[in-house]
Amino acid sequence: MTPLKRTLKEIAESVGGEVHGDENVTIKGLQPLHEASDGDISFYTDPRYKESLETTRASALIVGSRIDSYQGPQVVVPNPGLASAKVANLFVSGMPTFEGISGQAVIDKSATIGAGSSVYPLAYVGEEVEIGSNCTLFPGVFVGDRTKIGNDVIIFPNVTIMNDCIIGNGVIIHGGTVIGSDGFGYIRDGDRNIKIPQTGIVQVDDHVEIGASNTIDRATFGRTWIKEGVKTDDQVHIAHNVVVEEHTIIVAQAAIGGSAHVGKGVVIGGQVAVADHVNIGKRAMIGSQSGVAKSIAPGDMVSGTPTMPHRIWLKTSSLIPRLPQFKDRLRKLEKRLEALEKKLK
Amino acid sequence: MTPLKRTLKEIAESVGGEVHGDENVTIKGLQPLHEASDGDISFYTDPRYKESLETTRASALIVGSRIDSYQGPQVVVPNPGLASAKVANLFVSGMPTFEGISGQAVIDKSATIGAGSSVYPLAYVGEEVEIGSNCTLFPGVFVGDRTKIGNDVIIFPNVTIMNDCIIGNGVIIHGGTVIGSDGFGYIRDGDRNIKIPQTGIVQVDDHVEIGASNTIDRATFGRTWIKEGVKTDDQVHIAHNVVVEEHTIIVAQAAIGGSAHVGKGVVIGGQVAVADHVNIGKRAMIGSQSGVAKSIAPGDMVSGTPTMPHRIWLKTSSLIPRLPQFKDRLRKLEKRLEALEKKLK
Amino acid sequence: MTPLKRTLKEIAESVGGEVHGDENVTIKGLQPLHEASDGDISFYTDPRYKESLETTRASALIVGSRIDSYQGPQVVVPNPGLASAKVANLFVSGMPTFEGISGQAVIDKSATIGAGSSVYPLAYVGEEVEIGSNCTLFPGVFVGDRTKIGNDVIIFPNVTIMNDCIIGNGVIIHGGTVIGSDGFGYIRDGDRNIKIPQTGIVQVDDHVEIGASNTIDRATFGRTWIKEGVKTDDQVHIAHNVVVEEHTIIVAQAAIGGSAHVGKGVVIGGQVAVADHVNIGKRAMIGSQSGVAKSIAPGDMVSGTPTMPHRIWLKTSSLIPRLPQFKDRLRKLEKRLEALEKKLK
Repeated sequence: MTPLKRTLKEIAESVGGEVHGDENVTIKGLQPLHEASDGDISFYTDPRYKESLETTRASALIVGSRIDSYQGPQVVVPNPGLASAKVANLFVSGMPTFEGISGQAVIDKSATIGAGSSVYPLAYVGEEVEIGSNCTLFPGVFVGDRTKIGNDVIIFPNVTIMNDCIIGNGVIIHGGTVIGSDGFGYIRDGDRNIKIPQTGIVQVDDHVEIGASNTIDRATFGRTWIKEGVKTDDQVHIAHNVVVEEHTIIVAQAAIGGSAHVGKGVVIGGQVAVADHVNIGKRAMIGSQSGVAKSIAPGDMVSGTPTMPHRIWLKTSSLIPRLPQFKDRLRKLEKRLEALEKKLK
Repeated sequence: MTPLKRTLKEIAESVGGEVHGDENVTIKGLQPLHEASDGDISFYTDPRYKESLETTRASALIVGSRIDSYQGPQVVVPNPGLASAKVANLFVSGMPTFEGISGQAVIDKSATIGAGSSVYPLAYVGEEVEIGSNCTLFPGVFVGDRTKIGNDVIIFPNVTIMNDCIIGNGVIIHGGTVIGSDGFGYIRDGDRNIKIPQTGIVQVDDHVEIGASNTIDRATFGRTWIKEGVKTDDQVHIAHNVVVEEHTIIVAQAAIGGSAHVGKGVVIGGQVAVADHVNIGKRAMIGSQSGVAKSIAPGDMVSGTPTMPHRIWLKTSSLIPRLPQFKDRLRKLEKRLEALEKKLK
Repeated sequence: MTPLKRTLKEIAESVGGEVHGDENVTIKGLQPLHEASDGDISFYTDPRYKESLETTRASALIVGSRIDSYQGPQVVVPNPGLASAKVANLFVSGMPTFEGISGQAVIDKSATIGAGSSVYPLAYVGEEVEIGSNCTLFPGVFVGDRTKIGNDVIIFPNVTIMNDCIIGNGVIIHGGTVIGSDGFGYIRDGDRNIKIPQTGIVQVDDHVEIGASNTIDRATFGRTWIKEGVKTDDQVHIAHNVVVEEHTIIVAQAAIGGSAHVGKGVVIGGQVAVADHVNIGKRAMIGSQSGVAKSIAPGDMVSGTPTMPHRIWLKTSSLIPRLPQFKDRLRKLEKRLEALEKKLK
């Protein structure tokens, strides 16, 4: 890989920032303050790192407002965190991958694969699969029969995508994830459990990123649907017939129960459990480890099991360790009251 | 696949139902009310969908009692949910799979594989493995040395089954699951942890279905044992030396600690944690996210951390958000009582 | 495999124990009391199994002090549990594995692999990878470009190790684990989420054992770092930039949030969630299912969500089911007090 280079001027323009100092400095990467060396741009977003401003060797800074204690050129932007993420992406060179389609991959002859796509050895592509252009399939990837995959999709090693699923453009799926396994549907017949066939699919829309070792089950009927721009962390579980609306974020080890509907722009914390059939309104935020048994209104911030408004949870959770004191205070009140009552008889 | 077809009479007989209307209608599939079209049978089990009875295009219905608002033929059964699951299974055609044993699979020459079994490319079968008839091993499946697998077993992609394990007949194992990895056993030696060798196995009995990305550890000695008809959802963890009795259901992301014993017909909710050595009596039900630290009696319904009777949990959990009010009420009582006491001095 | 054999004298010497009885007995394995047969040594560590001492067929025992009810020879040691683990390890024969490097593995010609290493068919080793001596890579293992692996490392099936990571000597990684997938880093841009490139690595030091289906994310910058002797159970999640110090133990389904620092010799229970940026002091112990939102001091034992001292949690958690009674008692106190107040007016 040839290292990428940009002038500070180009960087400032890409994020709509204003340069203070020499705009012709050449930048070759982005690093945090204490890691940066000559040629790197860095960023100042967190006052905890204020002292590093004096010792950093960065050649330039991205800041929210001009910093006097730093001598080099600065790019001033309204949101330096966001600008830094955008600048970091300027320096990510295209991931080097296997060139073309390996003869050691197993690809059914009825499958079609678009131009510029890379299929590593030991990947498997089933019958009538359609894969778009500029995709990458790593070793150990399984794509089941008739599944359709868009353009610019990256599927990391040992991912399983079962038959008949639909994956959009620009999707990233991290290692070990399973998409399209059967939903968990049984019905009791005396002592036994009769399996309900899971005949639906999973549909994943454009620009979704799915973390490592997720499980996203296919629908009983119809589809389990992950909409545009959703991001899931590692070990997330999404049950059959769930719909997750656009740009929602789901943190590690959360589980969304069957047929739940998660609105647009929601944030679901780590290890949250959402019950079956629950509805979570758009832009709601669910604190870590919460148990969501009932539907949540749009914009609500909730925490706890069962969920309550987050501000009440903050008060409540600080009182839980005081329950033994409450018990003592109750006991004392009862005794004092009894004494008074006796006195007054 | 040729689509399967049945007359309504055949369907009614298969579930012991009574036909009201034309029993010679030909049915080619089962769909929910709003998805059904000409030739489909549908079902009515949930009053929330009552209005769909008037608009459905289904050619017949499965119902609990005759519905007047639907004009077509009806099959009346005592349990329409169960009957629908059974009818759905009539229309599941045998999964089309790789024909025979792929030359691109890696199979030790000492392994034996029964008639009608399908082994996809990129599967691995170790030394002295025995696989029965009509099994399917998808790509990326690993079967360790000396493991025995029964008949009619389906093992989905990227499943790992370590050496010396035993898998019964009719078992289904979904993608990414790991069976027979080492149990988590160490003993402290000063600052360090000495590994306790895990020399036992995992035994999975007939008609068990294991979800995607489960981890079921081998025993320290003896066996970890999943008995007939058990069903696990995705991302379930079962530790070394656990025994799960027949027909028990374990929902997503639950974890069963080492040497725990789970009785017959138990239902364990999502994200439940069961401590080591705990005993869960038959037909017990454990609510989602519960922490089971002590043994549970047969038939008990429990919830919470630590677990309590479910009906107490319902009351208790509705009071937790009121702790700040309790605190205020205690404070006020104390003040009022103090005032009274002063007055009476 | 030829079965291994030791005299009782050799066994006693290896654990610094004292033999009571015939030290020339030949031992061929270690089994629990009720499983042991002629030629096995067993151990007595748990009074619950006292009755088995009279019926065991073991040829010798490891004990904490001489047992009169057992007739055979005994090895007396201060810590019979630890001694048994060490003795068990004497009888673990080297795992038989694929001999040499399979022609059905896919290994880039720029990779180097040390003497005595075994690479199974269907493993993938990328460009410029360096693997030490006496390692074993099972089928389905993926090792990304430039990753370095030490000596005596075992990597079980379907493990994914992404590019540029570092794995030390004597490391064991169980099936399905993913190391080096992208950290979960986004920054909001209006409605959308902009990915923060994850350009760091994962470093795993000597003698670490990682359970099945873990996910350990690469750092945003720098490294996610698992230090010497750490042991993780199955389905553990470790986010980007976490540091876990030496000999710490993490039980199943625990999740450690981004940039958290976990000290030396810590024990983290099952299903624990540790928030981002939290610091856990050395030798702290965190009870199962705890939610660690704030830093924990060295040596502290905590439980609950949010965490509190474990002894307070024990009291508190026994009071939670009594909240409905507390409510009744409050109500009664208020009524009685009101009555008194009226009387006194």
